[in-house]
Amino acid sequence: MAPGPGFSDEQNETLCESESTVYVHNPHLDGMKEDILYHFNLGTSTHNLPAMFGEVKFVCVGGSPWRMKSFIEYIAGELSLEDPKAEYPNICAGTDRYAMYKIGPVLSVSHGMGIPSIAIMLHELIKLLYHARCTDVTIVRIGTSGGLGLEPGTVVVTKQSVDATFLPRLEQVILGNTVVRSTDLDQGLAEELLQCSKDLGQFETVIGNTMCTMDFYEGQARLDGAFCSYTEKDKQDYLTKAYESGVRNIEMESSVFAAMCKLSGLKAAVVCVTLLDRQKGDQLSSSHEVLHSYQQRPQILVGHLIKKMLQASASSRS
Amino acid sequence: MAPGPGFSDEQNETLCESESTVYVHNPHLDGMKEDILYHFNLGTSTHNLPAMFGEVKFVCVGGSPWRMKSFIEYIAGELSLEDPKAEYPNICAGTDRYAMYKIGPVLSVSHGMGIPSIAIMLHELIKLLYHARCTDVTIVRIGTSGGLGLEPGTVVVTKQSVDATFLPRLEQVILGNTVVRSTDLDQGLAEELLQCSKDLGQFETVIGNTMCTMDFYEGQARLDGAFCSYTEKDKQDYLTKAYESGVRNIEMESSVFAAMCKLSGLKAAVVCVTLLDRQKGDQLSSSHEVLHSYQQRPQILVGHLIKKMLQASASSRS
Repeated sequence: MAPGPGFSDEQNETLCESESTVYVHNPHLDGMKEDILYHFNLGTSTHNLPAMFGEVKFVCVGGSPWRMKSFIEYIAGELSLEDPKAEYPNICAGTDRYAMYKIGPVLSVSHGMGIPSIAIMLHELIKLLYHARCTDVTIVRIGTSGGLGLEPGTVVVTKQSVDATFLPRLEQVILGNTVVRSTDLDQGLAEELLQCSKDLGQFETVIGNTMCTMDFYEGQARLDGAFCSYTEKDKQDYLTKAYESGVRNIEMESSVFAAMCKLSGLKAAVVCVTLLDRQKGDQLSSSHEVLHSYQQRPQILVGHLIKKMLQASASSRS
Repeated sequence: MAPGPGFSDEQNETLCESESTVYVHNPHLDGMKEDILYHFNLGTSTHNLPAMFGEVKFVCVGGSPWRMKSFIEYIAGELSLEDPKAEYPNICAGTDRYAMYKIGPVLSVSHGMGIPSIAIMLHELIKLLYHARCTDVTIVRIGTSGGLGLEPGTVVVTKQSVDATFLPRLEQVILGNTVVRSTDLDQGLAEELLQCSKDLGQFETVIGNTMCTMDFYEGQARLDGAFCSYTEKDKQDYLTKAYESGVRNIEMESSVFAAMCKLSGLKAAVVCVTLLDRQKGDQLSSSHEVLHSYQQRPQILVGHLIKKMLQASASSRS
């Protein structure tokens, strides 16, 4: 947290020492006279990033721009920061690549679908937090997923993000060579989220591995894509192996999210609701209302976490 | 084209024989009592897909929803199909995953950024065209890219889509195993597009290879991401090797677009404008107006192609 008025110099120093900054790992950045965050339509010479974003402590990201707007409205109410007359303007209004909303210490950003789409957003978000000199940032991906052996509507907090062969790694191609990165997430934060679900008592939440794939149809063993070269039995055998390895849900962004957050010192978690049980089907045939109510669960869970963390931070200062 | 009134049975039969249908390769599809195209918010039991889409002969796809709306407005004017009072409604208005617009025989669909995002869209688009019983469909991706050795604003029509090691292939993971798919595009269509650019005489167009990467920053040897572990010289050496192998531009969707269109019998081309010369920089620092005018070039080129093909088709029937 940023030292505020009322702290003595000594207290400020102690606080500063315990602060965790957001890292970039790029020696070229500091030599650039400006940095244009192209896909956000923001930049260091056109925007005062420390003034706009310096207070950010929580970042929530998700695929859909609508859902990220609805999250900022929800969290504004939860934190009693809402202004009934206020619209929450899209900070990235000059582009349609991503949408971004902010209220107090909470930033909400959309990332589209798939590893490449979220990776572009995260490169620019990490640079934004670095330029804004943010400290002690917690970041959570809230998303949707297919479940394995779980009732639809169950929320999965990711223990490890694994690839299509169930290994906790991300293969990143750099200059044509493949580099393997770890997809570890913050275990303490995952446990805290599980505790939040117990506090709330509104829906089932489990901790499990999340399989991150490059494709929604063939990549997730669906039988209903434009192409399918395998049988129902092949599908079931694959999903059973995934379940036996500890996979409880399947989505398309967690591995690069985990890898990039780890590299930049962001405390990160992935919280996805399961929209269906993939061992029982492939199509998303639940009603719009049911799917919508499921999608609110990760928001409710993360909203509770943010309130708890802000309360703990306030009481440690008093 | 669909036989219309005024054709004799014999003519109809000849036309039908020469028609090329849109293929799916999935024996499970025909056994499904309905098919929900979830990310389009469309389905076979909720929408009359043959009535809505049966006349489609041209599909234009691109990353940005705004650009795909502007394309449908542009093509409506070019084909004199515009109605000054008409709004072009987003056919996928019930979801924010993709946007879709249609006028006469032309469909315009956004696909987001990266291979996984466009792959989800293409699975559902191919099924849509199949359910709608469309025939003789031409599909073009219009996009933006980084150029190699070209003046910014040059348009590249893709000869081959290559991966980060300059090979014309897509690695698709199915049930945890890697399958390699060809990324061939229609060479006749590429030549036709080059001819359209000569007809127009408004901007430079070349045919060259397009490198398709999984990441915008490290994956494209940029020096301005949140992470960078290589030097300026490493970057230049890599881009020089790419250029020597025939690569003229770099983007993030062409390989899976080429592979999936080939598998489904769609005549496909990729037309991307270069927004900068990557051997001279990484940041997109041109003015909004300049970048906007560059982005219109693929639209103008494809608009001209569609007009020419419709005129040829009309005169062959008269």
